Amino acid sequence: MQLPKLNDKSYLIAPQPDRIGLTRTITGVDHTGLEAEHSVVEERPLTIFLNKREIVTAMTISDYPEYLALGFLRNQGMLRPEEDITGVDFDEELETVVVRTAQETDYEDKLSKKTRTSGCAIGTVFGDMMEGLADVSLPEVPVKVSDLYTLSSKINRTPSLYLEAGAIHGTVLCQGDQPLVYMEDVGRHNAVDKIAGWMLQSQTDGADKILYTTGRLTSEMVIKCAMMGIPTLVSRSGFTAWGVDIARQVGLTLIGRLKGQRFVCLSGEGRLIRDAKAAAFPEEDPRQQRKGSKT
Amino acid sequence: MQLPKLNDKSYLIAPQPDRIGLTRTITGVDHTGLEAEHSVVEERPLTIFLNKREIVTAMTISDYPEYLALGFLRNQGMLRPEEDITGVDFDEELETVVVRTAQETDYEDKLSKKTRTSGCAIGTVFGDMMEGLADVSLPEVPVKVSDLYTLSSKINRTPSLYLEAGAIHGTVLCQGDQPLVYMEDVGRHNAVDKIAGWMLQSQTDGADKILYTTGRLTSEMVIKCAMMGIPTLVSRSGFTAWGVDIARQVGLTLIGRLKGQRFVCLSGEGRLIRDAKAAAFPEEDPRQQRKGSKT
Repeated sequence: MQLPKLNDKSYLIAPQPDRIGLTRTITGVDHTGLEAEHSVVEERPLTIFLNKREIVTAMTISDYPEYLALGFLRNQGMLRPEEDITGVDFDEELETVVVRTAQETDYEDKLSKKTRTSGCAIGTVFGDMMEGLADVSLPEVPVKVSDLYTLSSKINRTPSLYLEAGAIHGTVLCQGDQPLVYMEDVGRHNAVDKIAGWMLQSQTDGADKILYTTGRLTSEMVIKCAMMGIPTLVSRSGFTAWGVDIARQVGLTLIGRLKGQRFVCLSGEGRLIRDAKAAAFPEEDPRQQRKGSKT
Repeated sequence: MQLPKLNDKSYLIAPQPDRIGLTRTITGVDHTGLEAEHSVVEERPLTIFLNKREIVTAMTISDYPEYLALGFLRNQGMLRPEEDITGVDFDEELETVVVRTAQETDYEDKLSKKTRTSGCAIGTVFGDMMEGLADVSLPEVPVKVSDLYTLSSKINRTPSLYLEAGAIHGTVLCQGDQPLVYMEDVGRHNAVDKIAGWMLQSQTDGADKILYTTGRLTSEMVIKCAMMGIPTLVSRSGFTAWGVDIARQVGLTLIGRLKGQRFVCLSGEGRLIRDAKAAAFPEEDPRQQRKGSKT
């Protein structure tokens, strides 16, 4: 990369593209017949247990298995905000994380009923997420457009697995114009769940935060953001109709296709403070653009 | 779109971007404060049953629910190739598809055991997919590079939901230089599963086919392609290390980052017939590039 790199001291958690085990070198042959080495992301299965119950197997880059487990369970509504979590145990060899709670959770009881009546609980996961939303109330927080431009520029210039290897999504917890926690994973949902796990562990409140993601704004992404109590969700990518519907329902400020000086606000437009003249922020340098081949 | 459009008569199934219910018009406000209308993809939940057992709820654009259900179950190894399927019933109001088989399937038995012992079956889905691979043997089929270039160009010029609304993945079943069945969905897995469902229904053999996808080549995508008996998998996007490992294990020709005249072959390079001088095929017109904002 020829671009000036951002000093990552400002992050609480920044990507660690050089960390051993996250990527591997693989040899391929290009269109001209030449062999070339590629730095490629490693994915591994991770099975998440809630107490004695096996809940899901996720494909992940395995950098923060404990945060992923906590965040997944929290975003699915399987852990209440006030839950007494007595342990989070990662076993690298077995590729499992067990989250333990002081009391058997509601979800386990619900799951066991579902299991008896209609078989597997996979189908209930989505219903539970929508149920969890009923209790969510998001604060009416203003959002400066200049902050969005600054965040986008800072995040794109941060050294990351994406810049190193590609084929990965990123999600960043931000405050004002400052990115704080930058998580990456093969699936965009995992990256968001890892942030949720970090927030739960560090007891961080979402009310004054902005969530930035490289992935599309589907219903699930919007629901997760609302479950995390974050009133503003921003993406470089597009959006689905249901994602927009849910954002409008729960009062979330939803911004899609943020690239350079352009964006589309789909929900909560009244909260935008248009303090930046778009012309003052340049179009993205093509080398900064995430989408598109690294080669 | 200013580009010349491909005559889609050559497809057995082409995208229907104008079909009612697939998109909706949503009003947003852009970076200059102007209101603009956007054509946005609709996603809906679809719950898939195998006989009396609820298996999964997928978020889908709902254009081919029956193919999605059949293909999902087949790619998970829950339906054997020789299974006697007695019915596939879609209920639009309940948002369910029920796939019925003459005999109770092995999977139901396995699921019920898992349910008793370790709770929910979600975690077994991946294990089952890997198990299913043991029986897969892919034929040693040559692949012409000129066909890959022609396919890529034809597919990018085909009118699609992506060109209409964005935020969607496409997967295309091809033979030689001819795209045959072009499916789109919010998740890349759904688009592949719909192709698998069509292949099962129409008893189409994968041995002489090429599978093209816009999505990344993760382990799950490679496993699905192998389960479909298709020896060649091609993507515009990147790849993960495990995706490459599995392709090499099962003898699948794996090609990533196919854009214009460029690509990387990660597995099965010996089968490539380099019959095209790259220079004869132009770089992609920026307007043809899928990745990047539509706006």
